[in-house]
Amino acid sequence: MNRFKVGVLGATGAVGQKFIRLLAEHPWFEITAVAASSRSAGKRYDEAAHWIEPIPVPPQIAGMVVRECDPAELPEVDFVFSGMDAAVAGEIERKFAEAGIPVVTNARNYRREAHVPLLVPEVNPDHIAQIQHQTFDPNGRGFIVTNPNCVCVPLVLSLKPLADAFGIDSVVVTSMQAVSGAGYPGVPSLDIMGNVVPYIGGEEEKIMWEPLKLLGDLQADGTVRNSSIGIHASAYRVPVIEGHLLSVLVKLAKADVTEAQAREVYDSWVSPLAGLQLPSAPVKPVLRYDEPRYPQPRLHAPNENGMQVTMGRLRKAGLFDFAYTALGHNTIRGAAGGAVLNAELLVAKEIIRPRN
Amino acid sequence: MNRFKVGVLGATGAVGQKFIRLLAEHPWFEITAVAASSRSAGKRYDEAAHWIEPIPVPPQIAGMVVRECDPAELPEVDFVFSGMDAAVAGEIERKFAEAGIPVVTNARNYRREAHVPLLVPEVNPDHIAQIQHQTFDPNGRGFIVTNPNCVCVPLVLSLKPLADAFGIDSVVVTSMQAVSGAGYPGVPSLDIMGNVVPYIGGEEEKIMWEPLKLLGDLQADGTVRNSSIGIHASAYRVPVIEGHLLSVLVKLAKADVTEAQAREVYDSWVSPLAGLQLPSAPVKPVLRYDEPRYPQPRLHAPNENGMQVTMGRLRKAGLFDFAYTALGHNTIRGAAGGAVLNAELLVAKEIIRPRN
Amino acid sequence: MNRFKVGVLGATGAVGQKFIRLLAEHPWFEITAVAASSRSAGKRYDEAAHWIEPIPVPPQIAGMVVRECDPAELPEVDFVFSGMDAAVAGEIERKFAEAGIPVVTNARNYRREAHVPLLVPEVNPDHIAQIQHQTFDPNGRGFIVTNPNCVCVPLVLSLKPLADAFGIDSVVVTSMQAVSGAGYPGVPSLDIMGNVVPYIGGEEEKIMWEPLKLLGDLQADGTVRNSSIGIHASAYRVPVIEGHLLSVLVKLAKADVTEAQAREVYDSWVSPLAGLQLPSAPVKPVLRYDEPRYPQPRLHAPNENGMQVTMGRLRKAGLFDFAYTALGHNTIRGAAGGAVLNAELLVAKEIIRPRN
Amino acid sequence: MNRFKVGVLGATGAVGQKFIRLLAEHPWFEITAVAASSRSAGKRYDEAAHWIEPIPVPPQIAGMVVRECDPAELPEVDFVFSGMDAAVAGEIERKFAEAGIPVVTNARNYRREAHVPLLVPEVNPDHIAQIQHQTFDPNGRGFIVTNPNCVCVPLVLSLKPLADAFGIDSVVVTSMQAVSGAGYPGVPSLDIMGNVVPYIGGEEEKIMWEPLKLLGDLQADGTVRNSSIGIHASAYRVPVIEGHLLSVLVKLAKADVTEAQAREVYDSWVSPLAGLQLPSAPVKPVLRYDEPRYPQPRLHAPNENGMQVTMGRLRKAGLFDFAYTALGHNTIRGAAGGAVLNAELLVAKEIIRPRN
Repeated sequence: MNRFKVGVLGATGAVGQKFIRLLAEHPWFEITAVAASSRSAGKRYDEAAHWIEPIPVPPQIAGMVVRECDPAELPEVDFVFSGMDAAVAGEIERKFAEAGIPVVTNARNYRREAHVPLLVPEVNPDHIAQIQHQTFDPNGRGFIVTNPNCVCVPLVLSLKPLADAFGIDSVVVTSMQAVSGAGYPGVPSLDIMGNVVPYIGGEEEKIMWEPLKLLGDLQADGTVRNSSIGIHASAYRVPVIEGHLLSVLVKLAKADVTEAQAREVYDSWVSPLAGLQLPSAPVKPVLRYDEPRYPQPRLHAPNENGMQVTMGRLRKAGLFDFAYTALGHNTIRGAAGGAVLNAELLVAKEIIRPRN
Repeated sequence: MNRFKVGVLGATGAVGQKFIRLLAEHPWFEITAVAASSRSAGKRYDEAAHWIEPIPVPPQIAGMVVRECDPAELPEVDFVFSGMDAAVAGEIERKFAEAGIPVVTNARNYRREAHVPLLVPEVNPDHIAQIQHQTFDPNGRGFIVTNPNCVCVPLVLSLKPLADAFGIDSVVVTSMQAVSGAGYPGVPSLDIMGNVVPYIGGEEEKIMWEPLKLLGDLQADGTVRNSSIGIHASAYRVPVIEGHLLSVLVKLAKADVTEAQAREVYDSWVSPLAGLQLPSAPVKPVLRYDEPRYPQPRLHAPNENGMQVTMGRLRKAGLFDFAYTALGHNTIRGAAGGAVLNAELLVAKEIIRPRN
Repeated sequence: MNRFKVGVLGATGAVGQKFIRLLAEHPWFEITAVAASSRSAGKRYDEAAHWIEPIPVPPQIAGMVVRECDPAELPEVDFVFSGMDAAVAGEIERKFAEAGIPVVTNARNYRREAHVPLLVPEVNPDHIAQIQHQTFDPNGRGFIVTNPNCVCVPLVLSLKPLADAFGIDSVVVTSMQAVSGAGYPGVPSLDIMGNVVPYIGGEEEKIMWEPLKLLGDLQADGTVRNSSIGIHASAYRVPVIEGHLLSVLVKLAKADVTEAQAREVYDSWVSPLAGLQLPSAPVKPVLRYDEPRYPQPRLHAPNENGMQVTMGRLRKAGLFDFAYTALGHNTIRGAAGGAVLNAELLVAKEIIRPRN
Repeated sequence: MNRFKVGVLGATGAVGQKFIRLLAEHPWFEITAVAASSRSAGKRYDEAAHWIEPIPVPPQIAGMVVRECDPAELPEVDFVFSGMDAAVAGEIERKFAEAGIPVVTNARNYRREAHVPLLVPEVNPDHIAQIQHQTFDPNGRGFIVTNPNCVCVPLVLSLKPLADAFGIDSVVVTSMQAVSGAGYPGVPSLDIMGNVVPYIGGEEEKIMWEPLKLLGDLQADGTVRNSSIGIHASAYRVPVIEGHLLSVLVKLAKADVTEAQAREVYDSWVSPLAGLQLPSAPVKPVLRYDEPRYPQPRLHAPNENGMQVTMGRLRKAGLFDFAYTALGHNTIRGAAGGAVLNAELLVAKEIIRPRN
């Protein structure tokens, strides 16, 4: 099959670089355009970007001329990935959607929009039906799909098997988040080396809201009725490079679930993506460890190319029903990799189609 | 006043070294004996100990000959501090108490004993009345007093003002604990650098039990009726040198307490030690910060020579009533420094008295 | 004695904050003015500064209104400390000197100026005679004194006893430098956690030049004839908070010096400041350890309030004569603390005098 | 081709685990036996080993029963890799060689033996001719080949192009070494977090001797005449997980070599392994960066699966001729991976042959 022509918006930033790395050898997608702010536009990519990925700039990208983030400048693309800052993403993404170019974005601007899917393919793939209710593009070709905050991905993926089997009443989560979540230059070393910072601005609000939409019910009008789960979140920054670790307490809707039953639902849970052959989909989206010292960010965030969520120490908990630890790679599964998987699902469902 | 003659049991270990450092210039206590295992006994202290404190071995200690941990070998001491491992502390501490030598210990062995105080002076000073019910020494001179696990100190100190004012129904705590809590050599660098380990053996059980005794009610028979607070604890190891940070959720017994009321009880709370002039007592045992990024282990664990507990981000929390972050210096306030403060209270109350 | 009235230029920056901390309880100096860029001027200090020191803003400073860095705005001060960035320090410091206000600066702008002392009080105190040759102020009251780059301080202090005793032919130094040397926000955590960066822009040039002036000879015309020592420097950034560690090789002018002789010159070396009673002078400016694992930044940079240079592993070295490790606290001894000590020497020598 | 049957001695230790990981999918070698101390022998491998690699134990190894390190217990193997501690490696490796089993070892015991190659395939492949002079096995089948200390590999590989082109007079190296070099549990986190330790026992002696043999000349009698290069080494431990970084100064035998000439010899240097198709050989054994901030341990130690040595900041240096930074992955290229490459060369040269 011919690969889709893809543009990356915000290509010089930390998320944009991750898109470029993840797509360097992608079987379905080929980057034909990199776009960024006017400050970078017109320069060669390898001169415009302060490259921070631990591999060289892919040679086919290095010499590309950075374009403006304007749909008229990317006439050939089938769709775009957006790694733009929220400060500018709102208007630019809308323009692309209006111009008939699908936008698969990691930015937060449209996550709460009534007809925009907030999508984790293994959790709420049916929400892609929201797209047909979007009105950005009168021709029905352009649309916007978002992926959630980087903590929400391991949270909802690790809750999903329990939610399916028993229903969930309430959740308490304390996150221990890696510095890469703050981008580059991001967290100063003087703030975080040998230290923990008990506050990440704006983070807890997202962790307490986005899972409600992700675990909500699609309505006939294309909106989502949010879940009524109660969530409390406390977000901490820890001196870890990659991988957000979550300490989770959960109260189930069903009473008297045993530890053995809870373990069983994890070990037997089947992803709704099974059989779709999406290139970036992990074989096992949620892996449960019995070893009590697992998962650990440095050891397990890279599992399945950073796309697997891991969990462990599943145990009965006083006050609540169960306690466990969950882990997700924040800049892959929780950001660019999640968006790539979203796009793969949209291609498999023929919602993203070749331009001609 | 003449200083009390003090022995340190387990003097070569990490906690023992901290006792030696803290007592190097203590106005009330003078170390006259250092004791350790047979492997060290008979050697000069500075040759027997693998010294890890960031100051030199105090000169008056360096040349002391290490003695066996046997009451007959420490005939001159008024009382002893114990920094021994739990593996050996039980029997040795009992022998000292039986021999008429008060034991102020950091070891966990007697914390659950019916008539042994588990003591944090600002929290349950009345529990020292348990001592008179101890039967180790028929002459009534020898006894044992313990201090709690290093997480429990910042937990109960930060709960105490709320408990006094409103009563506490239940508590959820996720701890992010420093590597120094595991002693020396302790945590291998390969395990913890750039990482978080979601399990600390035996820790959560202590955090879920010890506060119940600490916040319990002294009975006429010298026992303590444990508090009925519900507690859930999850313990994590983080790459921090000193300072255990706690993410705490609390449900009060009283309904409808406002954030302003909660802040007020912290800011106006008066320590029961006020006026006692104990040398190691912090001026302000619990300091509350308004700055949301505070407290942080590297910045604030050293407050008031490591004896102050700090807290911040006190806020209303869904599911519970309030959330906050608390911090305590684990090897000072949570270990040797806590024991020293216990001894100071016992001296002030004339329960530890000069031998002659 | 009345304390000198002191202004701090660049008071909101990292070095400025260190000045404020070090002077909070200084017996000779009292900060009466804090000055910074126009962006901060007019605000309360505690609102203008992003405070990063691990103690609160001293209360007597917190409420001060930040002034412009203009001599007319600081009419009452006896002299100023400058912690300004090099980008602006040159012109502003000159204006203060011209206005008759002595400037004791940590900035690098005037270090190579013919009549400006580059001063480490224990190394080249006689260089203060250069001041009388300065022509900034026709009334002879205003002048500029600089302290060297933060690596140069432990380098020249650790070389000084050898230089005095045997003369030095050449030096090779590889520095392992703390992140605090880059200021705040400074080094991004993503760059340095679990990593080493083999380049610090502009650093090696300073390390290869400044010691030549520091160890040079004062001439009758007030200039310094630079030392002819050969120096090669390689500068690395390591994940350490405070303390620059140096791996040093030295070839002496004198042949056949034994290891015992070399050790002896360190242990018997007497500081030229001995007897002057300068408040910030370390009792022992250079401490030599025999323990081969010492010195270490985390353990020993804080020695003597950060003002002592430590060294160890002094040993014969093939190709050269001796190898050793040296350590200095980069933001205290190597920056603000060094400047404070310079000012103390100038007061003791009555070169800084009360304004009236 | 049938894969060689391989045993791993010391299979449960840190180096043994690395062998198991590297050989898990090796095209030429198949592990058929894992052997360790009597404490582990008889147990399943996954129960005997405290596994620390960031991938699971390969399933074909997990269930193997650990054998004693005795040649009679490994009758089927074609050769063995040894990751044993030096304390026991000497006698056991000799027994295997005497029993006709080639030993490719990472232990240091035989590195200085007259007829035992100390081998880095790209540096001194001709030294394998020493093997025919070994007398361990009268049948001429068993022998021992060693690889050097983990610092020596990036040192000699980075020196080799210069040595070939210009000859080398003398070398000064300061190493900044990762904690993984000390094995597991290895360096306590309390010693190294936010710190540098200026001493690694026994390390500098190896760095100053082993390159002399590696760069020495093979003699007709099967011995090696050591190089007469002068080397001084200073070894430091830094808080890095993987990757030893070296600050190197080099004086060439040839005068007046320009920086451009030196760069050119690196960029045009051809490995003697080119064309041999060894599975573990890096495409480019020594990669030179122009970016002054490179190489960095966290970014570049993993290059080419940890088998590539990187270097940068090649520049003229006063006192010497050139300065540069070099980096090698210490537990792969500098340990188990180096041994695997040694074995691959021995197979390619038909010195290791199938048993039957």
